[in-house]
This record gives sequence, structure tokens and C-alpha cells, in this order.
Amino acid sequence: MEDRVERWERRVEVPLLLLAVAFLVAYAWPVLDPRLDGSLVDGLAVLSWSVWAAFLLDFVVRVALARRRRHYVVHHWYDVALVALPMLRPLRLLRLVALARLLDRSARANLTGRVGIYVGAVLVSAVGLGALAVLDAEQDAPGATITGIGDALWWAVSTVTTVGYGDVYPVTTTGRFVGVALMVVGVAAVGIATALLAAWLITYLTAEEAEAELEAVEAAEAAEVAE
Amino acid sequence: MEDRVERWERRVEVPLLLLAVAFLVAYAWPVLDPRLDGSLVDGLAVLSWSVWAAFLLDFVVRVALARRRRHYVVHHWYDVALVALPMLRPLRLLRLVALARLLDRSARANLTGRVGIYVGAVLVSAVGLGALAVLDAEQDAPGATITGIGDALWWAVSTVTTVGYGDVYPVTTTGRFVGVALMVVGVAAVGIATALLAAWLITYLTAEEAEAELEAVEAAEAAEVAE
Amino acid sequence: MEDRVERWERRVEVPLLLLAVAFLVAYAWPVLDPRLDGSLVDGLAVLSWSVWAAFLLDFVVRVALARRRRHYVVHHWYDVALVALPMLRPLRLLRLVALARLLDRSARANLTGRVGIYVGAVLVSAVGLGALAVLDAEQDAPGATITGIGDALWWAVSTVTTVGYGDVYPVTTTGRFVGVALMVVGVAAVGIATALLAAWLITYLTAEEAEAELEAVEAAEAAEVAE
Amino acid sequence: MEDRVERWERRVEVPLLLLAVAFLVAYAWPVLDPRLDGSLVDGLAVLSWSVWAAFLLDFVVRVALARRRRHYVVHHWYDVALVALPMLRPLRLLRLVALARLLDRSARANLTGRVGIYVGAVLVSAVGLGALAVLDAEQDAPGATITGIGDALWWAVSTVTTVGYGDVYPVTTTGRFVGVALMVVGVAAVGIATALLAAWLITYLTAEEAEAELEAVEAAEAAEVAE
Repeated sequence: MEDRVERWERRVEVPLLLLAVAFLVAYAWPVLDPRLDGSLVDGLAVLSWSVWAAFLLDFVVRVALARRRRHYVVHHWYDVALVALPMLRPLRLLRLVALARLLDRSARANLTGRVGIYVGAVLVSAVGLGALAVLDAEQDAPGATITGIGDALWWAVSTVTTVGYGDVYPVTTTGRFVGVALMVVGVAAVGIATALLAAWLITYLTAEEAEAELEAVEAAEAAEVAE
Repeated sequence: MEDRVERWERRVEVPLLLLAVAFLVAYAWPVLDPRLDGSLVDGLAVLSWSVWAAFLLDFVVRVALARRRRHYVVHHWYDVALVALPMLRPLRLLRLVALARLLDRSARANLTGRVGIYVGAVLVSAVGLGALAVLDAEQDAPGATITGIGDALWWAVSTVTTVGYGDVYPVTTTGRFVGVALMVVGVAAVGIATALLAAWLITYLTAEEAEAELEAVEAAEAAEVAE
Repeated sequence: MEDRVERWERRVEVPLLLLAVAFLVAYAWPVLDPRLDGSLVDGLAVLSWSVWAAFLLDFVVRVALARRRRHYVVHHWYDVALVALPMLRPLRLLRLVALARLLDRSARANLTGRVGIYVGAVLVSAVGLGALAVLDAEQDAPGATITGIGDALWWAVSTVTTVGYGDVYPVTTTGRFVGVALMVVGVAAVGIATALLAAWLITYLTAEEAEAELEAVEAAEAAEVAE
Repeated sequence: MEDRVERWERRVEVPLLLLAVAFLVAYAWPVLDPRLDGSLVDGLAVLSWSVWAAFLLDFVVRVALARRRRHYVVHHWYDVALVALPMLRPLRLLRLVALARLLDRSARANLTGRVGIYVGAVLVSAVGLGALAVLDAEQDAPGATITGIGDALWWAVSTVTTVGYGDVYPVTTTGRFVGVALMVVGVAAVGIATALLAAWLITYLTAEEAEAELEAVEAAEAAEVAE
């Protein structure tokens, strides 16, 4: 039954989330401190690959448990990409998106409010992870202008808001892909937030009008009946 | 009859699309590989001009078949521009817009979804064709900063999202026209996408309210009748 | 009577518009061709000051004809600014806004369409006049990067779309004021266009729903009557 | 009673506002004129610290008067930040937000108009205070490009509109934080203004439709009754 997959996913959710946090640490530490002790770097690399192995194992188990295996693989193509491309290390940070479920549980408010919180959380995560990823890609590149976490965060914020000063900018292909991702996230987030606010304002403004209209209809009918 | 033009257009649609793809190859190849063998460059130029001749022939036939010829030419001024200005080579890539019809056939979903797909397709095409066109214009210009397809794509994305770092930028007049086109496409696409999302959200949010309102009216009427 | 002012305004509308066009020529010509013959430059300066005198005369007449003179002056503060500050030469180009009335007459379509045309016309005028004004301010400044009409137009477009590469940028205070005006116009125009499109889409999408709702109410009432 | 806090706040509102203006002067003067006489700089520093002391006293009194003190402190965390972090001097300018209350009193128009005025006032204040704060942070920094109030205002406007030329940009951490604040304010203000305009347009456009609909319902009912 498909239920077996769901039961497995529920059981491994928290361990996999902790592994993703461990991966974040193993990924961020050497990026932020390039003069880290060599043996510690090796240890973190081992941790990073162990997390990859755990993700691979989790995916193999889920495919094995699924009823319609080919269908399952096609519909979880992002998991395939995460596991099959070990060189796309920054992508693995997307595992942390699972944290959004925690957010979802704590903020079961109205649609507008919840999406607003999502947009904010996505923007903050995008800036944080984007800064890490671009620093990883750039800091040893020749001619790089992004050489510290301060520069990286400043660049990430000015990219996500589409300001784009150009005082610091990525020069490597990986760094530029991170930039494209941040631009897309930024433009989409601003558009979504604007649309949400407009929708909320209109439902708020028209609620009063609709009420007045309903009352008018009822009054007209009452007059009719009286007649 | 006007039908003759439509029958002709339906019959030559696929061949002209294949010719436009051939033109894309003939246009892109020498741009992407500037050290291409001279005889191959000549061959591609011949192919390019043959496509132009085919487009010209198609347009002449369509005008000949049309009932109100002057009216037809005025209403198809973009075809005139495509055919009459052989030096505006990048413009001819607009022929590929016909590919949108394929998209139209595969995605006959709701209005919002379809326009969303259109906007996405337009943005991706604009970045791809804009990068090609700017590279063609810039790569041999003195003082150019866009000298490879990587730079060109990076510039196109940062232009279409209105980020505009200014680490690379066009210096030729042709390249700047490509830039203006990309800016207009980007600003328009973001605005259209935001407006569409807002419209979809509002109809979704008000649908429930309208239902509740209708029920209230019906209940009031039922009470009236009972009375 | 206040009518006297209106009658005067109607009578001098076309002459003043022609004078504004003459001012545009007198303003633009020496800006676009800095090596213009000295005597021609002097002639254009005379023309420019004559236009100013005509505007001053027009304003004096209008104030004299007005019933409540102080009130009229306060409500036409932009005319006061245009006439009282001869050093703010680029501002006088705003006279050409009167051309919008022609636009208004030719495009009496629905609200959305008309405002859309307005926004487009404002953007095109802003780019054209902004490029002229910035070139006038910058072209003889030390360290200027905007030294030709091509640079000026490219800068104006990249400013109005908020791309802002920063490959060329104003260095004088006047040029920066032109830049601020272009930024404000650009941001406002994009926001207004997006809001208009959203409003049009929503009224279009809800029109069908409202119809369906109305039919349901009518059907319920017909059933009631039949009963 | 909680009323005691409100009575205190009403009584000290105007004095605190005057103190905030005094703080603005004491903050802005040495920033704008770096060659200010030493003894005057000292006097302004004393004034600045006196304002801080007055703010501290005001906050202590309010906490003392509050019924639920811990609750009050948690809900006024921005007051805590303002008072507890004397090194975050620019933050104290936020006190001037109290001026918005004056605005609120003078412009009690419809919702859309009032929020429009708020957005405009926030943008103008953000540019002014942001330019001051960035100039304070940057003007003595090595390698700074923002070295005068003209540069600072130009940078603030191009940041808040997300143009971001990058001809001048902050190099210090404090200056970059000011930049991030300006970007967030700019993006949010544009989004809010667009959403407001869309909402206003839609309620305006649908008002007529709703009226027509209501009339149709009434006409149908009148016909029914006549029958």
C-alpha cells in the first residue's frame, strides 16, 4: 500500500531534518572559516558524505516501498536530483525546506497571513543560504569580489531586492547560478506579496459593500411583502 | 476569399517553423563558436539567406491571396519589417513565436494558468534569444564586456529581472537595443504575473463569500415564502 | 466670470502648444549638436526667452481674468514655478504635457485602456525629455560619463525600468535631479500599470461569475413564483 | 490602571517629539558639517545624550505605571532597543515616527488616501534619515564613495527605488545595514502602493457593476409583482 511510504516518511522526518541541519553545519563551517584545521575539514567532509548516503538510503527505501515505483520516481524528480548529483552540494541545503512544516504547524492562521509568513521565511532563507553558497563558490576564485560572509550577505540582499549595485558580484559559473536563483526568488516573492496584499485589501474593502448591498436587497423584498 | 490565405497559412505553418529553427541554428552557431571554419560560416550564411527568401516568398504569396491587399499589408507590418529589413537579423528570431501555438495546444487550462505559462515561456525565450543577439552584437566590439555566452546569459537574466549589476553591459547600439527590449519584457512580465496572481487570488477568496451571500438571500426568501 | 479664463485658455491652447514645440527645438538642438554655429545658438536662445515671455504673458492674462486671483495663483503653483524660475529650463518642457489632451481626444476608450495609453505616453516622454535634460546638464561636466544622446537615452531607459547598470550615471546635481524624477516616474508607472491590469482582469473574471450568480437568484425566484 | 500609562503618554507626547527633533539636529549637524567647531560638537553630544536620558526616564516611568510590567516591556521591545543600545544612534531617529500622528490627524480621509500619504511620508523620511545615517557611517571610512550629503541622498533614492547604479555604495557594515533597511522599505512601499491602487481601482470599477446588478434584481422583482 501507498500508506507504507507515508508511514516511513513520518518516522524518518525528524532524523532526516537533524541530518540536514548537520549538513548545513558541515557545509557552512569551512566556507565561513577558510583557515580551518585540515583534519576538521576532513571530518566535516565525512559527515557531509554520510548525510548524502543517508538521503540516498532514504530515497531507495521509499522507492522500494512505493506501489507504482516508476510513477513515484518521476513525481519525486527533485529527490533524484538531490541524490544523483553529489557535485551540486548547495542544492542539498534545500532539504531544510522540510523546516517549513514546523512553520506550517505553528501558524495555521488565515490564508493571507500564512502565505505572508512563508514569503518572509523564504526570503530570509534564500539570503542566508544564497550568501553561503556564493561564498563557497567565489572565495578562492581569481578576480573574485565576494571574499567574506559580509560581502556575500550584502550581495545576496541587494540581489534579492533587485537593487543590484554591482560593487560586488559573482564571477564563477556556480556563483552566477546562485545569483539567478536569488533574482528569481526575489522577483517572485515581491510579486506574490503584492498580489496577496491587494487580494486581502479588496476582500476587506468589499466586505462592507457586499453587506450594504445585501441589506438593500432584503429591504426591497420586505417592502414588496408589505405591499 | 480570405479563406485562401488561412488555408495557405495552415499548410506552410510547419515548414516555416522548421525554417525558423534552421535560422536559429544558422544564427546561433557562428555566434557561439567564433572560430568556426570559414566554409561552414559561408554555408550557414547561405542557409540564413535562404530562410529569408522563403519568408519573403511566403509573404508575397499571402499578400497575393488576400482580398484586401493594402489592408493586409498594413495589418501585418511586423511581417513587412521582418522581410524588408535583412540587416535586423535578430528580429527574424521572432518567427519562433509561432512555437507558442504548440504551447497553446498542450495547455488549454484555466486563463490564469495559461497566461502564467505564457509569461514563463516569454521570459525564458527572451533571455535565450536576448543573450544570443547581444553576444552577436558585442563580441567583436572594442571595449566590450560581454565576450562569451556565459556573460551574455548572466547579463540577460540580470537585465530581465531589473537587477542590473553593471559588471557586464552592452556598449554597441545594437546591444543596447537588445537591452531595452529585455528591460521592457522583464518589467511587463513581472507586472502581468503579479496582476494575474492578484486576480486569481481575489476570485478564489471572494468565491466563498459570494456563495455565503447567495445562501443568505435564498434563506431570506425561503422565510418570506413560509410566512 | 471664471468663464473668461476658460475662453482665453481655449483660444491660446494651440498657439502655446506650438510655442512649447518651438521651445523643445530651441532647447534640444544645441544640446544634441554642441558644435552648433554661435549665431544660431544665440538665435535659439532668443527664441527660448521669447517663449518664456509668452508663457509669462499668458499667465499674467489668466490671473487678471480670474475672479478669485489669489486662489487662482495658489491652485496653479506649477505655472508659477514654470514662469518664475527661468533657470529651471528643463521644467518648461512640461508644457508639452498639454499634448496629452490630443491623446485624450483620440482615445476615448474604456478607463483601463486610456490610462494604459497615458502610462505608455508618460514613460516614452519621460525617457525622451529626461535624456535631453541629463545630456544638457552632463555633457560639459568634468568626469561625466553621459556624453552623447545615445548614452543619455540608454541611461534614461535603464533608470526608468529601475535596472540601473551604473555603466553611465549623472555626476552633476541637475543630472541627479533628472535621475530622481525618472526613477519616481518609472516606479510609479510600473505600479500603476500593474494595478490597472489586475483591476481589469478581476472585473473581467468576476463578470461571468456575477452573471451566473444573478441567474441563480432569478431561477430561485421563478421557482418560488411557480410554486 | 492601564489608563495611567495612557495619560502619561498623552502628557509627554509633545515634549518627547520636540526632544526627538532636537536629537535630529544634534545628530545631523556634525554629520553634515564635519569641520564643525569642537566645542559645539561637544555641546551637541551632550544634547544627544540628554535626549537619550529623557527617553530612558520616559520608558522607566511608563514601565513603573504599567499594571502588567513584564507584558508591557515585551510588547514595547522597540522602546527597549532604542534605550538599551546607545551605540545604535541612527535608530533613535525612529522616534520621529511619532510625527506620523500629526499626519494622521490632518488626513482623516478614506483608507486608500491615508495609506497613500503614509507610504509617501515613509519613503521621504527613509531617504532623508537613511542618507544622514549612511553619511555618518561612511564619511570617514577608508575607500568610502559616499562622502557628502549630495552623494548620500542620491544613493538613498537610487536604493529605495531599487535602481542601484553602484556609482556610490556603502563600504562599512553600519552603512550596509542602512542600505538593507532602505531596500526593504523601498520594496515594501512600492508593493503596498501598487496593492492599494489595485484595490481602490477594483472597488471603484465594481461599484458601478454592483449597482447595475442590484437594479436588475429589483427590476425582475418588480416585474414579478406586476405579474
